[in-house]
Amino acid sequence: MFQENLKRLVADTEGGVAGLLMGFDGIAVDAYTVPQGGVDIQTVGMEFSFILIQVRKAAEILEVGGVQEIAIRCASLTILIRVLSHEYFLALAIRPDGNFGKGRYLLRVVAPKMQAELV
Amino acid sequence: MFQENLKRLVADTEGGVAGLLMGFDGIAVDAYTVPQGGVDIQTVGMEFSFILIQVRKAAEILEVGGVQEIAIRCASLTILIRVLSHEYFLALAIRPDGNFGKGRYLLRVVAPKMQAELV
Repeated sequence: MFQENLKRLVADTEGGVAGLLMGFDGIAVDAYTVPQGGVDIQTVGMEFSFILIQVRKAAEILEVGGVQEIAIRCASLTILIRVLSHEYFLALAIRPDGNFGKGRYLLRVVAPKMQAELV
Repeated sequence: MFQENLKRLVADTEGGVAGLLMGFDGIAVDAYTVPQGGVDIQTVGMEFSFILIQVRKAAEILEVGGVQEIAIRCASLTILIRVLSHEYFLALAIRPDGNFGKGRYLLRVVAPKMQAELV
């Protein structure tokens, strides 16, 4: 169920290397990495789950509403994150030359499907 | 010098409300907010400077290269951040219905100009 959606998300995004469904506690529900993707998406997710919690706290303090999306572009990897609920988030790792806009769009499309499957 | 670039950055981005040049220590170099912008951009920057440092640390651990851009979309405000150097970053706050892509593009255009003016 989750695996199929993650795989499609990664495959349909040009430059996509890995997809991840994770709890804010840093524990992965499911993950998919392309063969020879060279990305340990679980470790990436664990590092960023901590940051996501900090972002959520900052948004609360600043009263700018709930955090919906975060994009972090580094020299050799871009991480797109879509918050699904207070407990879970969806992440997509793409190469720097990948299609950022398409990845962001597909995360939005797949998010409600994943959310519906999470009880 | 900084003020003029910040003002143009905000004015040329549809939905732009504030621009900020800040040190990673949370001390603002310069800032501009549109009249009735309703955003305390200095406080926003201070909250996110701490998060930026965490993101930088995570990127180092994950060996994904230097952090270049961060975008955080909340329900009532989107924050776009462009890292200028190890010391400074540029931030742009836009309304949810604002032009995310244009803001991101203009940050890229103005970044080298700001960088050149920072000694």
